Parts: sequence; C-alpha cells; structure tokens
Amino acid sequence: VKPAHRDESAWVDHIRALFGASAAEVGIGDDACVLPAGRYAVTTDTLVEGADFELAWAPPEAVGHKALAANLSDLAAMGAEPRYLLLTLGWPEEVGDGVVEALLRGVRDLCASEGVGLCGGDLTRAPRLMISMTLLGEQRRGPLLRTGGRPGDFLYVSGSLGGPAAALGRFEAGESLTRFHPSAPPAEEGQRVLDRFFRPPGQVALGRYLAESGAASCCMDLSDGLSRDLGRLCEASGCGAEVEEARMPLDPALAGLVERDRLRVALRGGEEQILLFAVPPEKAPLLDRAPAPLFQLGRLRSGTGIEVLRVGGEREALALEGFDHFRP
Amino acid sequence: VKPAHRDESAWVDHIRALFGASAAEVGIGDDACVLPAGRYAVTTDTLVEGADFELAWAPPEAVGHKALAANLSDLAAMGAEPRYLLLTLGWPEEVGDGVVEALLRGVRDLCASEGVGLCGGDLTRAPRLMISMTLLGEQRRGPLLRTGGRPGDFLYVSGSLGGPAAALGRFEAGESLTRFHPSAPPAEEGQRVLDRFFRPPGQVALGRYLAESGAASCCMDLSDGLSRDLGRLCEASGCGAEVEEARMPLDPALAGLVERDRLRVALRGGEEQILLFAVPPEKAPLLDRAPAPLFQLGRLRSGTGIEVLRVGGEREALALEGFDHFRP
Repeated sequence: VKPAHRDESAWVDHIRALFGASAAEVGIGDDACVLPAGRYAVTTDTLVEGADFELAWAPPEAVGHKALAANLSDLAAMGAEPRYLLLTLGWPEEVGDGVVEALLRGVRDLCASEGVGLCGGDLTRAPRLMISMTLLGEQRRGPLLRTGGRPGDFLYVSGSLGGPAAALGRFEAGESLTRFHPSAPPAEEGQRVLDRFFRPPGQVALGRYLAESGAASCCMDLSDGLSRDLGRLCEASGCGAEVEEARMPLDPALAGLVERDRLRVALRGGEEQILLFAVPPEKAPLLDRAPAPLFQLGRLRSGTGIEVLRVGGEREALALEGFDHFRP
Repeated sequence: VKPAHRDESAWVDHIRALFGASAAEVGIGDDACVLPAGRYAVTTDTLVEGADFELAWAPPEAVGHKALAANLSDLAAMGAEPRYLLLTLGWPEEVGDGVVEALLRGVRDLCASEGVGLCGGDLTRAPRLMISMTLLGEQRRGPLLRTGGRPGDFLYVSGSLGGPAAALGRFEAGESLTRFHPSAPPAEEGQRVLDRFFRPPGQVALGRYLAESGAASCCMDLSDGLSRDLGRLCEASGCGAEVEEARMPLDPALAGLVERDRLRVALRGGEEQILLFAVPPEKAPLLDRAPAPLFQLGRLRSGTGIEVLRVGGEREALALEGFDHFRP
C-alpha cells in the first residue's frame, strides 16, 4: 500500500529510479553534482501554474515536456548540446502525487530522447505547482550569440508563427489537450494546435548545425513574440530589420482570423521556442543542408527599428511589443 | 520619475548594473551563459515565501543572503569553490519593487564577498515570492562525498546546533530581525539568534581545506537536522554512529530550555548550514589548522542506526527525524 503522500526521501528515490543514472561524475544523492570537465553553456527557465500554464489545459506530462523544451531551445540557440539537468519542483499538498508523477514522466521521456541526464535538483512546498530547471550543455562550437548580425544579413525563423498564441486563446476559452504522447502529436487540427503549445519542434540539431557550419551571424530563441525578440536581436547586433508580411510562416490555426489579426498574432504571440537567426547572403547556401524547415522572412539593415512590409506594399514601423512577465 | 513597476527588461538592466560583469565567457543577456572550461560542481536550492520564510521575519536583504548561503554551503560540502550564479526570482504584483531590490542587494553583497559572479537567471510572476538559485563551483580537489565514512572515524560539526530552530520558534511567535548588515551581525543576543537563521557561518574555506588536506572521509551540508542528516551520512557510508550529548555544541539560545528539549532541538532542528563530516583518527591532527571552529561530537561505528550517549550515561537509539518538506 502506497502512502497518500510520499515524503521527501521517497520522492528522491522515485525520481532516481524513474530517470536512471546520468553521466555525471557525481549525480543525485550528494550535496551537489559534479560534471566531467568541459566547456558548458547553462540556462534556466521556470514555469509557474497560474502564470505560465493551468493544470486544466493538458495532462501533466505535457507540462513536464514543455518545461524541458523551453530550456532545450535556449541551449539550441547557443549551438550547445544538452547534457545535464537539475530539476526543482514545488507544489502544494492539494496537487496529488499522481499529477507530480505524470509531470516527471513528461520530463523523463524528453530527457531520454534528447540524451539529457538528471543529476540534481530540489523539492519544496509551494503555493502553486512550479517547475524550474537548469540545463547544462556542452559548448563545443560557437557559441551562437545575439551580437553578430550585420546589415544585409537574411533573417530566418525555423518554424511557423502564432500557433502557441492561438492555443493560449483556446485554453482561456475552455478548450484542453486531452492526451499527450511523448513522440506522437495528435493529427486532428483542433488538438494539434493545443499540443503545439506544449511541444515546440526540437531545435538542438539546427542550433548545432548553425554553430558548426558557421552560417549564422547571430541567433536567439524566439519565445516572447517576434516583435520583441527581433527587437532584442537588432539591439544586440546594433542594427535594424525589415520583415515581409507575405513571407511570414503562419500557423494554420491563424487561418480563421482576419488579415490584420493574423499579422498581430504572428508578430506578438509568444512561446514559439524556435530559432530566430541571421545569415550573411554569401553563406545562405549553407542552409540547404540544415536539419529543420527554415523561413526567410526579411533581413537586417542599418539604423534602428523594425519595419514591416505589408502585403499591399505599405511599410509600417513596428512597435516593440511582446510578452513581458511584469506587464498586464 | 521611476515607474511603480519595472518591466522585465528594466529588471534585467537593473540586475546587470547591480551585480556587474562575471568572469563567464558569455554572461547575462543571451539565451544561456557560457562558462570557461573546467570541472564544475553544481547545486540548486529554492526558498519560497510561506514555506521557508515570511517577509515579516526580516529585511529582504536577509532573505537574499540566506538563499545564496544555502547554496554556498552545499558547494562547500563538496570542497568546491563557488564561481557562477544563476538566479531565478518570482513574485506577485503585491510585493513591491523595493522588496525585490533589497533582496537582490542581499544576494549581491554575499556574491561580492564570496567572489561569485551572476551570469544568468530568469524572472517570472509567481503567487508568492520565490528565489531559486543554481550555483556552480570549481571542483579542483575532491569531491568530498557522503560515502567514504568508516567505523571508527571521528564525527564533527563545524558550528553550534539549534540556533536556527530556536529562531524559527521566535519568528513564529511574532519576533523579527530589525536590520541586516552584510558583514556585521547584531551583538544583542535576541537579535543575534534571529540573524543567525539568515546568516549561516561561511563553510567554503573549511570545505576547501578538508578537500585539499584529505582529512575527511565523508562530508555533507547539515541543514535538515542532525538526526536526519547523520542518518543520511551513515546510510551513504554503510555504517552507524554514536553521538555524545555532552559534546554537542548547543547554540546559546537553547540555554533557557529544559535539558530534554535542548537535546531534541539540537538533534531535530534544521537550517544550520554547517558541515557534518568524519575523519579517521590518524588524520585528526590535520584538523588543527582547519579554518573554522570544529566540534567532535561522536564517531562512526559498524552496524546501522544512531545511538545517543546521554549525559547521565544511558544510551538511546535515535529516531531518524528532521525536516521534511512534505511532512506536516
């Protein structure tokens, strides 16, 4: 008979058995883990119930998957290869052990397919479910930075825009993802877009390719909306940009919107967790062998600010808005 | 005129200016930080308002200090030298910017005195104030593990027991720490013990000394109560232990308790954040030059379980209890 609530050491035992051993010199079970000597890129990202997701939106496995995927896309944007994970979980007593176990399975499944080992973490009580991760990756090439873009470079994204924002609207309207399979997204369109919110397309291979080929002059994880993130990329690279509405790869979920709303969602929606990067024209042929679909949606240019070339031919200056945790 | 609430990028700018540059190859401002090649120990620890502290207990600087100190003592217990910090902060709108700024100053001051550089992190909305850190340290010697203890080894702690538990009782009774200075603890006894809760004595130099001298056979951070943590150390080392009541270094705050309660608090109180370690008798002379006060309170022995030798001469088997986040 299993107790209704595991104590802390029983959770540690459960987690250790679920994830198995990592390649760390010292893994779970001491005061810190010790990693093999190397050059590491390190990122951290946190999801909080009520701020970033609601449990009613999807099975907990999906939340665990998304939490790790968000960290993976940050490392991918540096051209690093994910290796070691530290996982912090906090939850209130009302969240049952079954929910936490399912969330952990979601993390474990993605760890297994990405070759990431769990080597440490922390468990705590918290007023709402929260999952915080620190992911370490080997930085063998690169790193890909935000600072190297130059006027004239072509601008790319590695996936479609607006899908996660569309999903967010549907979750808030009461829809939910009914199941989450680690490797098989749902085919049905209504569920597909909800699933996409939790399952960004993996960017690790693309990031590595960009770092190894030397193609990209600058690169970042696109997750706070194109307008905000492109603004950051431009600011870091000391240049401006123009993007063409006609070239924007819109998620099919945006098809039902009027044109003006489609553009707004594509520019301001967040949570894409794909790569936004620039490539000098002479290096563009290197992209032919890139291991991900790429969409060239504009280019960097001198000056500051971002201009959108509308389908009808008008040019509009873009206000730099997107997701901000501390704005309503 | 400063806005009532900073937005996310203004917070990042504020934090970057407050902490200054780290020695990371790539620091704050990209998708991940990149660290110089090396062998790293990594630990993570989280404090959540309502579970681990209340804002009414102390100035926010004290909370920031304690959050980093908890991570520092984990690295110290490995014999690692703290270098790089990733800081995740979440808070609700009701927590004013001034509170967050003060908390950050507490972190920054301790970073400065310990030679730790901030190189990344995450900011988010959360239902209560929470501060989560990942701290990376250079592991040049060791690491000190929990597994190497042998029967006959002398058992040590590097500070007094029960002070933080006594402080916790006082906070819950309505007392509070009125000020927190980064390097000057209060002299007055009532405030001294409250301050001790937030300011564990630094263990980094001791951890390094133990790793370099080869004195310790096993070592861990003592933070969940002696009975629980010594149980963990014994389990990891495959042995038992005996501790002598007469040798336990009690915090002066326990003086007012009756003898039985004093022992209970010393054994079960948590939050000490000092080192618990064992040393083979022939290596004990190496401790003469240790850079911290040490107290030998017993020894490891064969078998399992922990026995307490009471002042009156009786022997009592110790129940392995201490702090557990998931037990009432």
